[in-house]
Amino acid sequence: MLRPLCIAVFVAFAPAAHAVSAEHLEANKKAVAVNKKDFEAATKFLGPRYVQHNPNAVDGPEGLKAYITFLREKFPDAHSDVIRVFADGDSVIQHVHSVPTPGSRGNAIVNIYKLENAKIVEHWDVIQPVPEKSANNNTMF
Amino acid sequence: MLRPLCIAVFVAFAPAAHAVSAEHLEANKKAVAVNKKDFEAATKFLGPRYVQHNPNAVDGPEGLKAYITFLREKFPDAHSDVIRVFADGDSVIQHVHSVPTPGSRGNAIVNIYKLENAKIVEHWDVIQPVPEKSANNNTMF
Repeated sequence: MLRPLCIAVFVAFAPAAHAVSAEHLEANKKAVAVNKKDFEAATKFLGPRYVQHNPNAVDGPEGLKAYITFLREKFPDAHSDVIRVFADGDSVIQHVHSVPTPGSRGNAIVNIYKLENAKIVEHWDVIQPVPEKSANNNTMF
Repeated sequence: MLRPLCIAVFVAFAPAAHAVSAEHLEANKKAVAVNKKDFEAATKFLGPRYVQHNPNAVDGPEGLKAYITFLREKFPDAHSDVIRVFADGDSVIQHVHSVPTPGSRGNAIVNIYKLENAKIVEHWDVIQPVPEKSANNNTMF
């Protein structure tokens, strides 16, 4: 199974806290969307710690950098679309369609990011290959 | 591969809209958590339409009922824990650890529900088996 892309779409979060305004949450979402293709920028928004829950990635900021490098080398033509974004308190949730190789069905991904002081400090994801067939006509997105 | 459980944890949402108060969103989350084991109750909270994006389930309210029945018969000892819940506007997002059979590692699931007039009208999910080994010690949750 391909190691799915799951790190390509977060950068430029605005500051977040447990109690934040609706405008603030919307700004977070827009910032994520605008910068979704800027892979390298991601590391600029990491905090001093980075708790990684993706089981294929090593813990910590250095682990994320290594994982990004690995993915870019293995899937240089990968493309990710952020289909929808949610924000709640200090968390941002993305529903993503990631296509590691052009023409493949790709993966459905949900990323959950926790922020502190405008920096990403924790990441979870769930990744599922898009199946060839479905019992409905609605797609996974 | 087991068909993962992914429908067991939504019921009793409070009304939601695009602009809702923080208290309202919190109430939504709590309602979901309290009722998470009440499988049958789920169907009471379906709207007249139910757009299903899980590729293993047929579209519509009847499709969901059939899917619940199938899962309960196939995995009668299944257990799901809602690890974290987010709410944003008319959407509720759950991060779930679902264990279809006792002692198995189970699946990481993110459910996304869209509500209209206090009824669930659309559902997406992403499901990933928890792997035996991980590159970090943080678990998928």
